[in-house]
Amino acid sequence: MKFNIIHGPNLNFLGIREPEIYGHQTLDDINQEIMAYAMENGHEVSFFQSNYEGAIIDHIQAAHFEKMDGIVINPGAFTHYSYAIHDALKSVSVPAVEVHLSAVHQREEFRKISVTAPACIGQISGFGADSYILGILALIRHK
Amino acid sequence: MKFNIIHGPNLNFLGIREPEIYGHQTLDDINQEIMAYAMENGHEVSFFQSNYEGAIIDHIQAAHFEKMDGIVINPGAFTHYSYAIHDALKSVSVPAVEVHLSAVHQREEFRKISVTAPACIGQISGFGADSYILGILALIRHK
Amino acid sequence: MKFNIIHGPNLNFLGIREPEIYGHQTLDDINQEIMAYAMENGHEVSFFQSNYEGAIIDHIQAAHFEKMDGIVINPGAFTHYSYAIHDALKSVSVPAVEVHLSAVHQREEFRKISVTAPACIGQISGFGADSYILGILALIRHK
Amino acid sequence: MKFNIIHGPNLNFLGIREPEIYGHQTLDDINQEIMAYAMENGHEVSFFQSNYEGAIIDHIQAAHFEKMDGIVINPGAFTHYSYAIHDALKSVSVPAVEVHLSAVHQREEFRKISVTAPACIGQISGFGADSYILGILALIRHK
Amino acid sequence: MKFNIIHGPNLNFLGIREPEIYGHQTLDDINQEIMAYAMENGHEVSFFQSNYEGAIIDHIQAAHFEKMDGIVINPGAFTHYSYAIHDALKSVSVPAVEVHLSAVHQREEFRKISVTAPACIGQISGFGADSYILGILALIRHK
Amino acid sequence: MKFNIIHGPNLNFLGIREPEIYGHQTLDDINQEIMAYAMENGHEVSFFQSNYEGAIIDHIQAAHFEKMDGIVINPGAFTHYSYAIHDALKSVSVPAVEVHLSAVHQREEFRKISVTAPACIGQISGFGADSYILGILALIRHK
Amino acid sequence: MKFNIIHGPNLNFLGIREPEIYGHQTLDDINQEIMAYAMENGHEVSFFQSNYEGAIIDHIQAAHFEKMDGIVINPGAFTHYSYAIHDALKSVSVPAVEVHLSAVHQREEFRKISVTAPACIGQISGFGADSYILGILALIRHK
Amino acid sequence: MKFNIIHGPNLNFLGIREPEIYGHQTLDDINQEIMAYAMENGHEVSFFQSNYEGAIIDHIQAAHFEKMDGIVINPGAFTHYSYAIHDALKSVSVPAVEVHLSAVHQREEFRKISVTAPACIGQISGFGADSYILGILALIRHK
Amino acid sequence: MKFNIIHGPNLNFLGIREPEIYGHQTLDDINQEIMAYAMENGHEVSFFQSNYEGAIIDHIQAAHFEKMDGIVINPGAFTHYSYAIHDALKSVSVPAVEVHLSAVHQREEFRKISVTAPACIGQISGFGADSYILGILALIRHK
Amino acid sequence: MKFNIIHGPNLNFLGIREPEIYGHQTLDDINQEIMAYAMENGHEVSFFQSNYEGAIIDHIQAAHFEKMDGIVINPGAFTHYSYAIHDALKSVSVPAVEVHLSAVHQREEFRKISVTAPACIGQISGFGADSYILGILALIRHK
Amino acid sequence: MKFNIIHGPNLNFLGIREPEIYGHQTLDDINQEIMAYAMENGHEVSFFQSNYEGAIIDHIQAAHFEKMDGIVINPGAFTHYSYAIHDALKSVSVPAVEVHLSAVHQREEFRKISVTAPACIGQISGFGADSYILGILALIRHK
Amino acid sequence: MKFNIIHGPNLNFLGIREPEIYGHQTLDDINQEIMAYAMENGHEVSFFQSNYEGAIIDHIQAAHFEKMDGIVINPGAFTHYSYAIHDALKSVSVPAVEVHLSAVHQREEFRKISVTAPACIGQISGFGADSYILGILALIRHK
Repeated sequence: MKFNIIHGPNLNFLGIREPEIYGHQTLDDINQEIMAYAMENGHEVSFFQSNYEGAIIDHIQAAHFEKMDGIVINPGAFTHYSYAIHDALKSVSVPAVEVHLSAVHQREEFRKISVTAPACIGQISGFGADSYILGILALIRHK
Repeated sequence: MKFNIIHGPNLNFLGIREPEIYGHQTLDDINQEIMAYAMENGHEVSFFQSNYEGAIIDHIQAAHFEKMDGIVINPGAFTHYSYAIHDALKSVSVPAVEVHLSAVHQREEFRKISVTAPACIGQISGFGADSYILGILALIRHK
Repeated sequence: MKFNIIHGPNLNFLGIREPEIYGHQTLDDINQEIMAYAMENGHEVSFFQSNYEGAIIDHIQAAHFEKMDGIVINPGAFTHYSYAIHDALKSVSVPAVEVHLSAVHQREEFRKISVTAPACIGQISGFGADSYILGILALIRHK
Repeated sequence: MKFNIIHGPNLNFLGIREPEIYGHQTLDDINQEIMAYAMENGHEVSFFQSNYEGAIIDHIQAAHFEKMDGIVINPGAFTHYSYAIHDALKSVSVPAVEVHLSAVHQREEFRKISVTAPACIGQISGFGADSYILGILALIRHK
Repeated sequence: MKFNIIHGPNLNFLGIREPEIYGHQTLDDINQEIMAYAMENGHEVSFFQSNYEGAIIDHIQAAHFEKMDGIVINPGAFTHYSYAIHDALKSVSVPAVEVHLSAVHQREEFRKISVTAPACIGQISGFGADSYILGILALIRHK
Repeated sequence: MKFNIIHGPNLNFLGIREPEIYGHQTLDDINQEIMAYAMENGHEVSFFQSNYEGAIIDHIQAAHFEKMDGIVINPGAFTHYSYAIHDALKSVSVPAVEVHLSAVHQREEFRKISVTAPACIGQISGFGADSYILGILALIRHK
Repeated sequence: MKFNIIHGPNLNFLGIREPEIYGHQTLDDINQEIMAYAMENGHEVSFFQSNYEGAIIDHIQAAHFEKMDGIVINPGAFTHYSYAIHDALKSVSVPAVEVHLSAVHQREEFRKISVTAPACIGQISGFGADSYILGILALIRHK
Repeated sequence: MKFNIIHGPNLNFLGIREPEIYGHQTLDDINQEIMAYAMENGHEVSFFQSNYEGAIIDHIQAAHFEKMDGIVINPGAFTHYSYAIHDALKSVSVPAVEVHLSAVHQREEFRKISVTAPACIGQISGFGADSYILGILALIRHK
Repeated sequence: MKFNIIHGPNLNFLGIREPEIYGHQTLDDINQEIMAYAMENGHEVSFFQSNYEGAIIDHIQAAHFEKMDGIVINPGAFTHYSYAIHDALKSVSVPAVEVHLSAVHQREEFRKISVTAPACIGQISGFGADSYILGILALIRHK
Repeated sequence: MKFNIIHGPNLNFLGIREPEIYGHQTLDDINQEIMAYAMENGHEVSFFQSNYEGAIIDHIQAAHFEKMDGIVINPGAFTHYSYAIHDALKSVSVPAVEVHLSAVHQREEFRKISVTAPACIGQISGFGADSYILGILALIRHK
Repeated sequence: MKFNIIHGPNLNFLGIREPEIYGHQTLDDINQEIMAYAMENGHEVSFFQSNYEGAIIDHIQAAHFEKMDGIVINPGAFTHYSYAIHDALKSVSVPAVEVHLSAVHQREEFRKISVTAPACIGQISGFGADSYILGILALIRHK
Repeated sequence: MKFNIIHGPNLNFLGIREPEIYGHQTLDDINQEIMAYAMENGHEVSFFQSNYEGAIIDHIQAAHFEKMDGIVINPGAFTHYSYAIHDALKSVSVPAVEVHLSAVHQREEFRKISVTAPACIGQISGFGADSYILGILALIRHK
């Protein structure tokens, strides 16, 4: 099976950005952990990170034509206002799972609202890099 | 007269995306219908679609320098939060009309709010491809 | 085809009322412009104005029995609170379009809310008398 | 005992209007069902329907002078904004019961708010024509 | 000088309706008190009461053509939702004062909001029949 | 036919609790009045009161297995926050009517909101013990 | 009869402050106009202005011991948040009328809320200096 | 490792309750699926369901004394208002994961708010029985 | 005199639960401190703790029949939503004081709202075990 | 030990102001009751009342330099909006208790909000003059 | 050029009050730093601090008559509710800049709202004593 | 010292866009004024403008690697909704100051809310091009 892992804005700064909240892991560390898990289980994963809302939409649309089996997306701050990403996820035939590194219910008020989650089959938050791996698992079980 | 037709994010997925709401027409079909109408009436139209908010703003600004006679814009999901497009439309001397394919007042709550409409001379929604054609008509009568 | 043009409260004061907002055109001028357009295109139109919410509802119901092809309604201030007109429009089998002379999104806060629009196939605002004519066009294309 | 049955706006369109919500019964059918029940039990009932808020207020006031034993009122859409009917019901010495055909709590958001109910001795909703008959019963037991 | 006194819905029930709030004075008593004051001071007053919103709008428009010197209006419950009366008052060239018998700030929440006051030159509340007389005085001093 | 009458928390204190609001009738008096009515009409009723939210949910679920013909429930203070009872009522195939002794629209603000009513076929309030009897009647006519 | 005229904060800057809203009249001009009116009608008036909330409360309490016949108070900006002045007005046995120079319903949002009015017998706004004179008249007629 | 699976109110009605939303699986089916997964991976799981908020709190506290390795809790409707369960989860030293069968972001408004999630290490929703299994996995990886 | 001390949910976890907020004292320590104070002053106290809302209501009702002189209740998390306990406290003739160990106004937002306090004669918070002792004192002085 | 008792605006009108709410006791009566209690227990108390927010802040700051052992403050109406008194209480090293004569949770809506309480160690309300005495006790036990 | 530096309530407690937020600098230290800067650049500055809202308004008005070139005001807690200071700043012809020592957007919720800023030419916050110096600079460049 | 000046969307239209609000200065004029000031004081500045949110985030991140001494950012319309820029500013170790040309508190409602300011050390608005210069000064003094 083939999965797309999409990281939203500023996630390329993991390890640099406020390590007391986000930990010392870099995005590369996370990607390698996901990759290791995928290879072990015989799946293919590709990674994408962008600070551009439009680039993420383009990428979601591409997943449609490449007939991916699923998208695991951490929309970063776009979670809270990007109705355009919401529409993109609804436009394509590929199922998506929304993930977050930290427990969004325990942080600032604005992080509790997700406008993109209603376009996903489910949401997982609070487990660090494991949130992504649980997301892949959820897509596999979802078939 | 010369008009700019601007399509916002995900409109390139028309015909693919939720056809029970948006119909089976593709964006190309719509553009051809508009083009036919324009040629019949001796007007020039050019088309632009992008999933990037910034690209749409650049395009609106370009219309100013190209001295277009009007802009017909369907901002897609940007309608609901892009104050930047709102400011772009107010910055230029070209009059704009906001259009929507479906009747936004009859859908989800968040689709009822338009932050871009206050920067346009009027808003037309609910008539499918005809929304665009009515938009051109409105610009012509507006002079 | 036969259309009903319905004007809500105070529209009989056009030309008298705040001309800097509503222009110097009287309701008669507007009706004649609409009539001219209709005759040119081989359609029949009839006009009705009332300051009574009940009279407007009666009239909408009559359109049902007279098998009109469409209603173009400018509910005036009733737009903002008449759930009764909303229900009337939903009760009948005649399609309706809501129109406004000025761009309601650019005026006082309370003018932005329409409780009647969700019962119409579309809404057109900001084009003066042309709003009505565009409304008829929309009904024709709607079939 | 003598009762007044008051039907608000658009109720004369029962059977015509959205039959999947309101059923195929006409207002006449309902009135006959109520009448049958009343005669069987030795009561007098009179019926009134209007699309005019003012006419309904006049009628409520008349009930005061005619010394009716109770009013059963279905204010239709006026339920949601007519403070004037609210005041009328409070002004008269005749007790009133507010009734609705369908279960208003299970429909659109705006149908959940009743500004007229606080002026009644009780509210009954969701039982079709039976709502009226239960209303009469309630008035009788209320004495 | 010539003044129009307009009483809104249910004010014809003064003396009958909740006398512990509105007192035992009837509308006739109030009108005679106003009339006595007017004649003493050499002014002409005419009275109008209606439970119909439309009739009140018609009457306000008539005041324009009859070139009245001022309107004293107690919109009753229409105060809280009739944007149509608001528009009517703005449409005419006759200055108006909004009056209330009781102190609206000391009653139910919904009575604190006036949608008609912004269309008047001022508002007076809480002085019983004197509210009307103070209203006339205010119009005279306003010139 | 067989009906379940469910009384929520503190209703066992009727006659003791604030008699100026709830009257001097005890819960027993009310139950006997209901019983008398039921027997007269050939129906079976059983009664249940509890201060435990969980016990009430258990009881609603039991009604499902006992194939009751209907539930008349006065959820007491649970009306205002028990989404769990709401879900219980929706889970079972037995139709329910929500009743209240007093007119909840005329009391404290928090008593106006019902989270359980949307799970019932109708709501009846303000008629004292009769509210329950009207509830049974409503269930019978509902079939 | 003896009246106290109390002016709140910044009213001593009338004529200096934004004359396009408040006019060119100074507080002195207004006081003289009031004084002239009072003397003509055989009444005594005294004036007080302060920018101190505490001083205004002291003054209201003093009016109680001096057995004034009434207070006409323009609380200025204190209108919108001084619950302390509200309590002071309720503490004393002297009736008060709240007045405003301009029509508060036609200005900024925060000027529409009065926390002091509920402690007065009535409120008058929008008539310039006449608001005070109408206030005295209202107190006289109130007896 | 030992895990506690806690099911909140009405979950014992799965398969009976609104199958078009919750599917035809019963709670037993779900428990067996979880059990199979646990045994396969060498873990111990125990199950508990209750309609009583207090019983669930007792159970959470017991997990503390039994030194469980983790709690997977689906609080059902208690999710939305039980601050008492929130406090219980915070009181114990056992980590918990909140799970939901369906995607709460795509249903009624009140289902979007979780007062219990801030006391958990993470939240997983939308994957049916898999939500529980992913929850166990998350606890294992959390160590 | 005889007093009832009622502890709400999770208070049996004092000393275990977040000691940096609630201290190392257990519920037993607190009860002994209260007992010592009571005996010293010749009063009788009995203690009750439960995680069940219904059990607390039963206990409050029992206090009525046992003719207790007062209730000191710490409703724990029920403080914030249990209208049922509110009603129970209002139903009985025994005066109650609400107490909290910590200063609820200095903690999370939801802890600031008390729906049970309006049914008590007073509220005391922030003094640890002393809150209960001050509560007894308050009941004694209240007589 | 030395305590400061601070009374806010209008408390000097106790006995005069609405005696049906505040009783017939004057502020002097209350102060003497507090003084008697203090002397009996070997403490020193000083009293201060002002209608000026600034004077109360000055007084709180003075308590800091005079090394008082505690402040018992009844901020009167300032309770509801004086963030400045809030800041003053936070600025000084002297602990404070907020007290109210009546049970603020049972009165007007605006009296339920306290902006000053978060700067105190606790709040006591509803016990008349005893509120102050319990406040002193609380400060003593607080050490 | 001559400038007025106005410090609001509790700023005289700088260095004493919560030094972890406000630092160890006293108001005197800050004033000397400002003075040094002003003298170096050939300007005159005068300082004023008060805990009285009225005294601050008097002082703002005085600046008008003394023809100051600008006001730098830190309204302290008055920032959040003093519409009276807002009006004072609008009343005078002297331009004002609002300053804050700490970054108000990063603190308690109520500190984010400024009712006085709309009456200033600009706002500067977060730079400690430098906020004042930048304020003077801003006024100089404003001319 | 090295500073980055970042201009958000539509700022390249200064001088063209609504000159009655934004003046006739172009962005080039502003940049030259800033450059002159910087050179005079021996600092280095670089300029960047983009209509793309992603490009601005990229640029903020670059400033981190280039070890800039500070960022002066005018986020234009992104100020009001770009949580992504907020996160970017928080991710980097370079201090930032938010600036605006006009006084945002005196314009449309939506311009009063800044979601980016909480990620900056301070905010300066209302001084035209000087806002940028004051921003540099603030960064220098901040060290």
